Amino acid sequence: MEQISPQDITTMFLALAVLLGSAKLLGELAQSIGQPSVIGEITAGILLGPGILGGISPHFYAALFPTRGAFPTVLSVVSNLGVVFFLLTAGIEVDLSSVFRQAKNSLVISALGIVVPFAVGAAAAGIYPEFMGMEKGANAVIFALFVGVALSISALPVIAKILMDLSLLHSDVGTLILGCAMLTDLAGWILFSLVLGMMTTHSTNFSALKHTILLTTLFVAGALTLGRWLVNKILPVIQAHSTWPGGVLAFIFVLTLGAAGFTEHAGIHAVFGAFIAGIVIGESPHLRRKTRDHIHEVVTHVFAPFFFVSIGLQANFVKEFSLALLVPLLLVACVGKLLGVGLGGRLAGLDQRTSWLVAFAMNARGAMEIILGLLAIQTHLIQGRMFVALVLVALLTSLLAAPVVGRMVRSERAIHLRDSLSSKLFLPELHSRSSKEVIREMCEMASEAAGVPVDSLFPPVWYRERNSRTWLFNGTAVLQARAAGLDKPLVVAGLQKRGVHFGSRDEDSARLVLLIVSGDTRSQIQLLRDAGRIFRRRETVEKALDATNFVEFAAAINAPADEQEAAA
Amino acid sequence: MEQISPQDITTMFLALAVLLGSAKLLGELAQSIGQPSVIGEITAGILLGPGILGGISPHFYAALFPTRGAFPTVLSVVSNLGVVFFLLTAGIEVDLSSVFRQAKNSLVISALGIVVPFAVGAAAAGIYPEFMGMEKGANAVIFALFVGVALSISALPVIAKILMDLSLLHSDVGTLILGCAMLTDLAGWILFSLVLGMMTTHSTNFSALKHTILLTTLFVAGALTLGRWLVNKILPVIQAHSTWPGGVLAFIFVLTLGAAGFTEHAGIHAVFGAFIAGIVIGESPHLRRKTRDHIHEVVTHVFAPFFFVSIGLQANFVKEFSLALLVPLLLVACVGKLLGVGLGGRLAGLDQRTSWLVAFAMNARGAMEIILGLLAIQTHLIQGRMFVALVLVALLTSLLAAPVVGRMVRSERAIHLRDSLSSKLFLPELHSRSSKEVIREMCEMASEAAGVPVDSLFPPVWYRERNSRTWLFNGTAVLQARAAGLDKPLVVAGLQKRGVHFGSRDEDSARLVLLIVSGDTRSQIQLLRDAGRIFRRRETVEKALDATNFVEFAAAINAPADEQEAAA
Repeated sequence: MEQISPQDITTMFLALAVLLGSAKLLGELAQSIGQPSVIGEITAGILLGPGILGGISPHFYAALFPTRGAFPTVLSVVSNLGVVFFLLTAGIEVDLSSVFRQAKNSLVISALGIVVPFAVGAAAAGIYPEFMGMEKGANAVIFALFVGVALSISALPVIAKILMDLSLLHSDVGTLILGCAMLTDLAGWILFSLVLGMMTTHSTNFSALKHTILLTTLFVAGALTLGRWLVNKILPVIQAHSTWPGGVLAFIFVLTLGAAGFTEHAGIHAVFGAFIAGIVIGESPHLRRKTRDHIHEVVTHVFAPFFFVSIGLQANFVKEFSLALLVPLLLVACVGKLLGVGLGGRLAGLDQRTSWLVAFAMNARGAMEIILGLLAIQTHLIQGRMFVALVLVALLTSLLAAPVVGRMVRSERAIHLRDSLSSKLFLPELHSRSSKEVIREMCEMASEAAGVPVDSLFPPVWYRERNSRTWLFNGTAVLQARAAGLDKPLVVAGLQKRGVHFGSRDEDSARLVLLIVSGDTRSQIQLLRDAGRIFRRRETVEKALDATNFVEFAAAINAPADEQEAAA
Repeated sequence: MEQISPQDITTMFLALAVLLGSAKLLGELAQSIGQPSVIGEITAGILLGPGILGGISPHFYAALFPTRGAFPTVLSVVSNLGVVFFLLTAGIEVDLSSVFRQAKNSLVISALGIVVPFAVGAAAAGIYPEFMGMEKGANAVIFALFVGVALSISALPVIAKILMDLSLLHSDVGTLILGCAMLTDLAGWILFSLVLGMMTTHSTNFSALKHTILLTTLFVAGALTLGRWLVNKILPVIQAHSTWPGGVLAFIFVLTLGAAGFTEHAGIHAVFGAFIAGIVIGESPHLRRKTRDHIHEVVTHVFAPFFFVSIGLQANFVKEFSLALLVPLLLVACVGKLLGVGLGGRLAGLDQRTSWLVAFAMNARGAMEIILGLLAIQTHLIQGRMFVALVLVALLTSLLAAPVVGRMVRSERAIHLRDSLSSKLFLPELHSRSSKEVIREMCEMASEAAGVPVDSLFPPVWYRERNSRTWLFNGTAVLQARAAGLDKPLVVAGLQKRGVHFGSRDEDSARLVLLIVSGDTRSQIQLLRDAGRIFRRRETVEKALDATNFVEFAAAINAPADEQEAAA
């Protein structure tokens, strides 16, 4: 077997260093102006790409990112591993029970979220093909289908990253959005394979697709039933009989690589398998928080950026840029998606505000569109300028998504944690160290204050905890409960200086426990965000723990807001 | 830029899943029989290689690991990234101050550890070239030099892994071995480039090497002075102004990739740069334990196995196997290295036992030999059978190293923690929560009991702590001090239920603190191992913490030994 040359290895390491460094730098910059870091990472790629860096210094560009030798394959390998492992962590974060709880809504929203943009896109491309960038001699039907599919696929990785960056992943609306994105992607991938088959055979023969659809359905159904059961059986065995966390980490990565290989083989993209593998793994109550953290940190901060930054290297964003193509494509894309998802949201019974929030989040596009675009170039259906326009549509819709969603979440008069606390709901010394007893104690207090039966509060909170879903950080555990009809949210705060054991037995324990009870999505999200912001500071937690009465506790969390903002 | 085909992607994911899964499975098996996991990982590669799996089922082998298409490059990329990141974590674990403290010893040992095996190897190959596997028509001088270098290079990654697997990395002898391995490797790499230059030009012109030697020296000197200073300045800035630990993780990986690219460019292997980068990063007191853990876990359990397992795929270990070549090569390799290092150890003033321990550890060979072998094949200096013999020498010497070193460490009457504790040295309630005060308090007790001045105990322990070198796990902190002439080691144990802040400010704190004071290396190693074994169990720590007097404390750590063995 051949080794790559020392020259290739030098190039590989230096290029990867430049890519990762630039991606993180711009990612951090993006975050500092309130955008998700993924926007910065994609932008870094465009700046380093053939159009901009290649235009400024062609010699340096060619030396750094050679188009000959092993480098293109290296980049492809690293970016494929990056996106696959990123989808693994996104999958782990998905709370399947919440997705199922919202299954009806997700189905309605994603159905309309695919059909409408597909119809709008295909119609626009069918009626005005030249205007939408069709090349001479291409098959008009296939082109129209291509545009329809390209504009209807959502970007699961980008959406997941935006939700993570905005700390929305654990909220109900975050789960709804992720559920919709998952379903949209599933349908999108099947449509994608269909169009791909037509593009490569230059014909419209559907029979070859049966295979893909069958395998995909079997895979998803098998993974979520038998797969879940097996993982649940195997994880504790591995944790007991192998070095920890090494054995578990390897098991998770092997499973992910296998699932990715399978779905790629089945004709949908590898990332889909990795995502489903992540969900299955994340659902197991045996997965320990530390294992999850190790994967999450290294993947989101080192692997994922490689994928996002490498997009920009795929085309010349200066030479191939065409405003005349970008504007109509962007308009058609946004109109179709926003209308479809918004309508779906209303049909599913969401209020208007939440419908728009979901619609703008789902409007973000990304990887699949770009991969589809690359394949379309190879089969001469489109040319470089259409590819560049597609990437820019992906980037601009994603750019739009984060601030709009962020603003919607933040707008109106903010609800603060401190306003929802009260001396009646403060427990300076929790009686028990077991999570079950503590949850029951706090739910009982909340039930009295909210005037709802404790049986409607305790079971869902305890279910989350039993499935390792309690949000733990910095010695703080945040529990959430919903109480329909509650017009003002309330927060129970409890201290247990010896620590309450949440999660599996050898996890970090929490010394400060919060139970957020809310009647609506908005206040739940805001209180979660506020709790995260306040208790991210170790000093605040320490001060709060030293409190012996409510006044001291309130003072501890009431440190000057700008000081805490700066720390966050 | 070209994308690799969906077929290539499928192969890549499935092959990587098989490689990682097999490597970890055999790695765990190896560990369960007392071998370091790296032996299992290399063996897995040989089993999956063209000789064995390829012999049993050529069709399946060719489908899983195709030699055409993108797969060879994929494997090369993944294994290169694996070994580079592994050397990063090995570097992070190196405690430079201990290396410097033992610099004289390391220098003497590594000088003899290179010169003797080089001389023995080159002489054997010069006198009996056919016997040692030279091909017809090859340059006899170059061949002799090649064998000399191949047998004198130690395997830094393998040695680091063995030391990690045997929990010896933090002991003095572990540091000495790693220091020697580092120096041997540095010299080995320079010799390597020299022979490489001669192999590729088929001449013995030394002038081209000046460049490599100069760049390497500049790099090492610059990294350990200016580099350390810069990292120390930059790390806190990144930790303050970026998402944590994302920004730091990315910074570390960028630095590592850059250093790897630089040393590869300079003509020594990329792993050397990564190793030096790791040392520089690990030396910074600003590096937090969590960051270190995230890197360590994912790298040693997911990346490193890819490198070790991929070695076996590089040759046909059945067809190219030659016992007539393996036996003399192995003998020459072992005799040269053991004699050289052993002699060096004695000259440096080590006792005979420790000299042998260091010699057997340094006798482990690995990656560089194999890479040198691969390059020698490409330049027709040797053929497949010599390559296979070299890999087997690497494997067998490594196989020999772990049990011999492990047995030497374990043999004689074991020294147990419980025998070194006493009621006089038990502090049920430490006065302070600051690490400095606690360390002083414990050192004062130890100084009285051992009859040595406190000034000889406190400064080194406090220095280690200030440089984030205190060994922390499971809420237990283990401090070490040396007291020359102490014939029986003693252990001070202290409890602080509110936690003592070791490490940087937001680290996990320790509630149980041990100070091991020993007069010799052997008892220090054994007590460290015993402490690790006992307090690895969460239950033991909890029980020990509930102790209010020495009898209860002793009972807590005196749980049946076999029960604790099973847990360890």
